[in-house]
Amino acid sequence: MSKLPPLTLVKIGGHVIEHEDALNVFLRQFAQLEGDKILVHGGGQSASVMAHRLGIVEKKEQGRRITDKETLEVVTMVYGGLVNKKLVAILQSLGMNALGLTGADGNAISAKKRPNYPIDYGFVGDVLAEDVNLNFFEQLLRMGITPVIAPLTHDKKGQLLNTNADTLAAQVAIALQEYRPVRLLYCFEQNGVWSNAQSQAVLVELSPHLKDQLYQEGVIQDGMVPKLANAFCALENGVQEIRILHYADLLVWQKGKEPGTKIVSSK
Amino acid sequence: MSKLPPLTLVKIGGHVIEHEDALNVFLRQFAQLEGDKILVHGGGQSASVMAHRLGIVEKKEQGRRITDKETLEVVTMVYGGLVNKKLVAILQSLGMNALGLTGADGNAISAKKRPNYPIDYGFVGDVLAEDVNLNFFEQLLRMGITPVIAPLTHDKKGQLLNTNADTLAAQVAIALQEYRPVRLLYCFEQNGVWSNAQSQAVLVELSPHLKDQLYQEGVIQDGMVPKLANAFCALENGVQEIRILHYADLLVWQKGKEPGTKIVSSK
Repeated sequence: MSKLPPLTLVKIGGHVIEHEDALNVFLRQFAQLEGDKILVHGGGQSASVMAHRLGIVEKKEQGRRITDKETLEVVTMVYGGLVNKKLVAILQSLGMNALGLTGADGNAISAKKRPNYPIDYGFVGDVLAEDVNLNFFEQLLRMGITPVIAPLTHDKKGQLLNTNADTLAAQVAIALQEYRPVRLLYCFEQNGVWSNAQSQAVLVELSPHLKDQLYQEGVIQDGMVPKLANAFCALENGVQEIRILHYADLLVWQKGKEPGTKIVSSK
Repeated sequence: MSKLPPLTLVKIGGHVIEHEDALNVFLRQFAQLEGDKILVHGGGQSASVMAHRLGIVEKKEQGRRITDKETLEVVTMVYGGLVNKKLVAILQSLGMNALGLTGADGNAISAKKRPNYPIDYGFVGDVLAEDVNLNFFEQLLRMGITPVIAPLTHDKKGQLLNTNADTLAAQVAIALQEYRPVRLLYCFEQNGVWSNAQSQAVLVELSPHLKDQLYQEGVIQDGMVPKLANAFCALENGVQEIRILHYADLLVWQKGKEPGTKIVSSK
């Protein structure tokens, strides 16, 4: 255990990817992070925009988005192709030897198709840390390569699966901490988790107890709910440090400051 | 030189990729090829179809297609995403540890943007064997990985470039034969190079001399002209065996038969 140097796993969301200036700020900082790194990216609205341009109607069941065959093709094109290769090409220009991956590539991450009851989500994969090809990632890192992971997995039977990028990041972090300390950084366009939606005051730390309280008060809502579920899952499974922070605070973090919100266990 | 076992580099064209049955026949045979392998794929009409669906008008200059910014995005999505990941996922299901790549990934293949005079082709890259990251490919092969290369390169300055798949295959073959014998197989939907368009009789061998003659007679035309230019370039640069053959003849070839047309030097 922990014989290797620490690894920094950064997850970057769709909002940053869609804004050229924000993306460049983030990538410049990411390229300057010391030590072994992995980047996991979402795709935000870019797949929805492309689906709309192609006249594909978004399908929902009980308010949840469904990944049908056409939508999976769009997600594969946009996340696995357009977004992933753009990030890789920019990182290469910044001197980082990045390599873009879906879970199918090198059998990096397999997943199980989500059961179709009570809701059939279509081609959506649920990933577990045990389905992460730990040795493959360690081999790439040893080659000086920085994996850039698109939110797609495969079922080993030829089927690609749409997979939540926050979950993917947490499960890859859990898998990789078998060999070394992992710092999991969820980067997005806010300064951290808010304690109050009006003041946008940022919590320095967030425990499960406080999370439950803020959830009941409606302060924590929407996309932050599953993000925090993934963050606490990583904490429970031994990931050394988990932080939710602004995309422009990576180097501040590297200097030993504590930007954003640290995920902590209840005392 | 040639201390490593032979490598088989297979190029597969758009027609096969677009036809499900043909693709499955080809991939099953490819997965059964013994020894180290690399697959280079084109994308055929799939990018044009997608561009049309998106309302992007194909631009031409003096009859040649131009890769403008929008077209590059489509090519990146379709070749680098949709086609590449589909091939990788199917090969994984067939027990082959495939890894999809563009030239940007792992800095696998860089290229120079084609000069914009006399024709500005837009974001098109010309690749040379010296721009192929030989050691990266050898490291992947040593890991038991089969690289699956999409016809995209990068300029190391953050720009992806559309690149001819036949040329890419030839230049990767030339680069890799520094360490071992390389067999370069151009697979497509015909049985080889025709000596006669009416009878569709297939040449067992093709020399530069015969090629010139058939070219003047108009028997060799269209896409076969640049394909053969690449094939002869590979021959002149020391690639051990170059063959143009039907996509369903890979295993026949492996058994020591000589399907299709072998590219040979003039005696």
